[in-house]
Amino acid sequence: MTEPHRWNMGPFTHDELRAQVEDRYAPLFTPLRIGPKTAPNRFYSVPYAGGWSMHELNLELEHRRTRAEGGWGVVCTGEAMIAREGVADMIDGLEIFDDADARAIAPIADAIHEFGALAGIELVHYGGIASPRTWRMPPLAVSQMQSDAMFFSTAVGQTMTRGDIRRVQDEWVAAARRARAAGYDVVYVHCAHSGQPMQFLAPYYNQRTDEYGGPLENRARFLLELLERIRAEIGDDTAIAVRFAIEALGPGGLEIEEALATMRMADHLVDLWDIAIGGLANSDRDLTPSRLYEEGASLQWSRRAKEATDKPVVGSGRFTDVDLMLRTITSGDLDFIGAARPGIADPFLPRKIAAGEFGRVRECIGSNHCAYSEVQYTFGCSQNATAGEEYRRGWHPEQFTRAANADRPVLVVGGGPAGLECATVLARRGFEQVHLVEAERQVGGHMRWFAKLPGFNPWGRVIEHREWLAEHLREVQIAPNTRLDAEGVLDYGGAIVIVATGAPWATVATDPFTNTPVPGADASLDHVLTPEQVILQGKPVPGRRVLVYDCQADQMALGTTQYLQERGHEVELVSPFADIANRAHQDGVSFALRGEILAAGGRLRPSLILAAVSGSGAVFLDETFSETEIACDAIVLMTRRASDDALYLELDAMPERRAQEGIQALYRIGDCAAPQDLAEAIFSGHRLAREIDSPDPSVALPALRA
Amino acid sequence: MTEPHRWNMGPFTHDELRAQVEDRYAPLFTPLRIGPKTAPNRFYSVPYAGGWSMHELNLELEHRRTRAEGGWGVVCTGEAMIAREGVADMIDGLEIFDDADARAIAPIADAIHEFGALAGIELVHYGGIASPRTWRMPPLAVSQMQSDAMFFSTAVGQTMTRGDIRRVQDEWVAAARRARAAGYDVVYVHCAHSGQPMQFLAPYYNQRTDEYGGPLENRARFLLELLERIRAEIGDDTAIAVRFAIEALGPGGLEIEEALATMRMADHLVDLWDIAIGGLANSDRDLTPSRLYEEGASLQWSRRAKEATDKPVVGSGRFTDVDLMLRTITSGDLDFIGAARPGIADPFLPRKIAAGEFGRVRECIGSNHCAYSEVQYTFGCSQNATAGEEYRRGWHPEQFTRAANADRPVLVVGGGPAGLECATVLARRGFEQVHLVEAERQVGGHMRWFAKLPGFNPWGRVIEHREWLAEHLREVQIAPNTRLDAEGVLDYGGAIVIVATGAPWATVATDPFTNTPVPGADASLDHVLTPEQVILQGKPVPGRRVLVYDCQADQMALGTTQYLQERGHEVELVSPFADIANRAHQDGVSFALRGEILAAGGRLRPSLILAAVSGSGAVFLDETFSETEIACDAIVLMTRRASDDALYLELDAMPERRAQEGIQALYRIGDCAAPQDLAEAIFSGHRLAREIDSPDPSVALPALRA
Repeated sequence: MTEPHRWNMGPFTHDELRAQVEDRYAPLFTPLRIGPKTAPNRFYSVPYAGGWSMHELNLELEHRRTRAEGGWGVVCTGEAMIAREGVADMIDGLEIFDDADARAIAPIADAIHEFGALAGIELVHYGGIASPRTWRMPPLAVSQMQSDAMFFSTAVGQTMTRGDIRRVQDEWVAAARRARAAGYDVVYVHCAHSGQPMQFLAPYYNQRTDEYGGPLENRARFLLELLERIRAEIGDDTAIAVRFAIEALGPGGLEIEEALATMRMADHLVDLWDIAIGGLANSDRDLTPSRLYEEGASLQWSRRAKEATDKPVVGSGRFTDVDLMLRTITSGDLDFIGAARPGIADPFLPRKIAAGEFGRVRECIGSNHCAYSEVQYTFGCSQNATAGEEYRRGWHPEQFTRAANADRPVLVVGGGPAGLECATVLARRGFEQVHLVEAERQVGGHMRWFAKLPGFNPWGRVIEHREWLAEHLREVQIAPNTRLDAEGVLDYGGAIVIVATGAPWATVATDPFTNTPVPGADASLDHVLTPEQVILQGKPVPGRRVLVYDCQADQMALGTTQYLQERGHEVELVSPFADIANRAHQDGVSFALRGEILAAGGRLRPSLILAAVSGSGAVFLDETFSETEIACDAIVLMTRRASDDALYLELDAMPERRAQEGIQALYRIGDCAAPQDLAEAIFSGHRLAREIDSPDPSVALPALRA
Repeated sequence: MTEPHRWNMGPFTHDELRAQVEDRYAPLFTPLRIGPKTAPNRFYSVPYAGGWSMHELNLELEHRRTRAEGGWGVVCTGEAMIAREGVADMIDGLEIFDDADARAIAPIADAIHEFGALAGIELVHYGGIASPRTWRMPPLAVSQMQSDAMFFSTAVGQTMTRGDIRRVQDEWVAAARRARAAGYDVVYVHCAHSGQPMQFLAPYYNQRTDEYGGPLENRARFLLELLERIRAEIGDDTAIAVRFAIEALGPGGLEIEEALATMRMADHLVDLWDIAIGGLANSDRDLTPSRLYEEGASLQWSRRAKEATDKPVVGSGRFTDVDLMLRTITSGDLDFIGAARPGIADPFLPRKIAAGEFGRVRECIGSNHCAYSEVQYTFGCSQNATAGEEYRRGWHPEQFTRAANADRPVLVVGGGPAGLECATVLARRGFEQVHLVEAERQVGGHMRWFAKLPGFNPWGRVIEHREWLAEHLREVQIAPNTRLDAEGVLDYGGAIVIVATGAPWATVATDPFTNTPVPGADASLDHVLTPEQVILQGKPVPGRRVLVYDCQADQMALGTTQYLQERGHEVELVSPFADIANRAHQDGVSFALRGEILAAGGRLRPSLILAAVSGSGAVFLDETFSETEIACDAIVLMTRRASDDALYLELDAMPERRAQEGIQALYRIGDCAAPQDLAEAIFSGHRLAREIDSPDPSVALPALRA
């Protein structure tokens, strides 16, 4: 095995991959026809959004190019909206409103073609659930209906006349023609995630009494007419795919038997089926966060598609286990291994499999940070700091340049996600001596307790992968069980010192109105605890009735509540937010875990602010500032994590001593700087290592805007 | 008085305005020095965000140019972020990160100068409450603190070292230098809305023990150092302004005495004070929605500023009453009439005052749709459909071209906001005959009931203004008390027929899981009601205990609840959402009105989905699908508004009859197409009238992306 940083991911051909791969895995590298086109292998990067707007096409292009370079046989762009009226404002994406748009997105297809992959594009219209307020046109509803706002949207559209239907079909066909002209090989009609053709199919949305409503034949008319027209327009030399939600599993879609019947009706017009499940209202079923679903969980649905078609079928399932992939292909369950998240986490997954370099794979952890971040701010990945940064920072996931100061010895203090990432990237940048000193017996930092919460074990892959890398990078030395104080750091001999000491939970809660301590909310007391005290330090949780007080609103308090429930406690989860764990909605776990907590006898107590803690309970303020006392034997404080930055600040305050001891640079990364999501902590360590020889590495080099 | 459409708002000079204005209002048009610059009058368009990114500078430019053209003496851009680390991701805006950015925004200043106005720019850094995830750098905190997430942000920054403080001050100074180079006359330091200098000042954020923390002199050090350096850098020929929150009225700012002391310390470095109140956590205090605050309510704070300075003071207060403006200037309470919303609603307010054309003014209604929409989707205004559309649709607020088909008689069916807007704009486009036929005794549509809710009377200005216009436009004929059916329309004689029949509340509630009627939830029963039945139709509300079931989550159900409370009912407001009336947060009224409802003995019941209604109560499902029965005497259904589109659809289905009767075109606008916010209904009517001679007026012409 080559050392990771000496392994160069340069240019390649798909023939070379086929020549290289072990016979055993050859079925994954066998070409397959998709209508008039041929995919070079079975790795299929399905359409997924990155949140990039039409002003940011460079970001989209480099992201997709990198997946093609990583060996994926088909690489799709993010979804492309076909008309202003069909846009879902929740997230930016491609638009193909006119010929100028088509010209603008053509270079993305070219970039995908450079590496021998087919380029796919998914055409999308959100119909009556669009929220086209950007363009200020009413959504086009199959039937005007009750706002399904509690699920996903407050949009209520205008009921389509026949004229509206004809017009929107014209727009679909025009978009398909433009997609072909832009060089795309596989053009999708999106009929999943509650998109427009699915709205016609689903009785939930379709209450029409004309020839487009009623029996399935009528509800399928819109899709069939559309496919016929698109087939006639571009079908000779372009593959036509349908992304199809095969089972609703809730409102807003089809039951599986009607779905299969629809596939049979449409099959002669389709070159490939890309199988999804559910709708936007229950998108966790399609996004399958690892907390709720195993790798390949969606196979039970996608394999049913084979009953209704002989055309190739692609399905996704967070596949990173190469043997599962192989079984899936050889059994005929799927023809293509579809992937969004596994290719975000490791764009070079196919080439690493071809090379037999399984250890190098950054396996997706199923945190769904990508799905959360693309909507909320900037696309990112818990495993792969370069995802989304391919263009704007020029980061290649597998190529690292030698740093100008690579001869300096580096001391990294703290082996959590940020420290491990920084150390391993520094080694790949040519640093000869990277010492990572960890106070605890084991590295892992924040993940040491978090990955112990029920069901969050897959998140531990972040640490496992970096431990593997560190073992295989001779430049990295890990010293566990070693706690350094400032003197220890000064004596150590590092020329570059990087402090990555993390952020444990605050042991004192503060009042949100005064930012001063809440009386009695102090984890030095027996009945007041932090998650680390409970899970890592063995501090006993007194009594049966426990409150978890959560100000973070992500999945951490949900998991901690379940951890305590599993140990026999009666737990009430209390939050100042009206919607408990609302930040975990986007990850797709909030409703499900809240449901599990309630089913296990727990209680959710929203809209309460902690005011005082005593030996017998805690006092909260409600919205009217009235006091509510909740009796309990113990309370777990999850108010905030507090940076353990004392070491950094102490060293920062002694510039002369540092100079005397030969320390030329001092940095803080990860949670030690500021508590942050796992993806951002990894990014922080990666960023510093990438820019360690910049003029001022403590500040990020300016990323390009577009 | 000239007829509105014959009044041409062409080029002007400020001297001409001064020559034109009545003596009585001359003080509003007196020039005043701001440091080295001179403002031509006292109308001051303060910095406000439009939500336009650096990719959309054309939109920003035309919006500001239009305010300068309308006669404002000082016109500011939206806030300009000085560094990637300081960005608040909640809204897009200007950025002045480097010299290239400065060059990019220079044309905005040029456009403002074209009309003799001064150009202002507000430099902003959000410090520790930034959420700079776009750029992936930790926020810079004065002190790392408990997440104040329940208020506005989950960001928790890294504690600034002295090196960090020095660096960020360098960035401020560089941004000021760039703003001057870009041609701006008034350069702001933002020290309000919880921005960075205010974070140093406020004990809530500042718990430092070094020379930047502790007594006020220390907490003010950051601001004073900053102003000294900016003064030295650009002060000779550029005015320096501070936007300053003079009273916290909650966490996150200063008490007024410390604020005045700070002003005295800084006054020698400042050319103008722009007075705000509150912080981001209580931004309704600064945004003053009309539901909660009268015009000029903020004067009680801003006039205090005069105690501490002899420099000019600007303050905002939703000023549209010219006599109040006059008193405010002549009394010396303020030196400039600051305005964001009044100038959004009517950019030509100063010129209309100068011309004595008070009736033409589109007075701001204080709905705060601008503040909501700029964050949520696309900047818009309830009164002014052209706000934000100046560039991308090329709409001038006061100039209308004659339509190619202006000789055709037009029939508008329905006199709600959309119908009135459409009719008056068509007249201004030269249509000679515009008949507006209204079924009810009075026009107003949706506003007929909504503006009767407690405190929502100012929203009625939307109707009053358009009624005034219609009276002064001889081409518009309004026929009240006339209900047209399809035959009536066919017989009427319109060549262009526009249906604007609105969207009353649905009289039947539907189940969100099946989209079928909820048993018993039918407003044809005595104990089930809609808001129109209660408020307009005099249907009796039986008994004392009333439920309001709200699926819209905006201010409408809050108002309806209060309407019922005022009439002696015990009301419980039930919602499927965890956070009741969450869409009203952005308008700034949700917390306040919820508080009033609770104080009046009402009850809020979140997270409940209506499952059945009986004579004695209603059954709801909670998150675990368990049933909760709530006893009541009556229930008001506010599930959705349903387009009254039967007339439109009937006419649409008879193309031959229409042709026979000479109807050449048929359109639907406003809520009749799809229920929407007031601003969008107005937009819908305006849009059709602007594009009535386009190839297909039923579909909006493509707006430019940037």
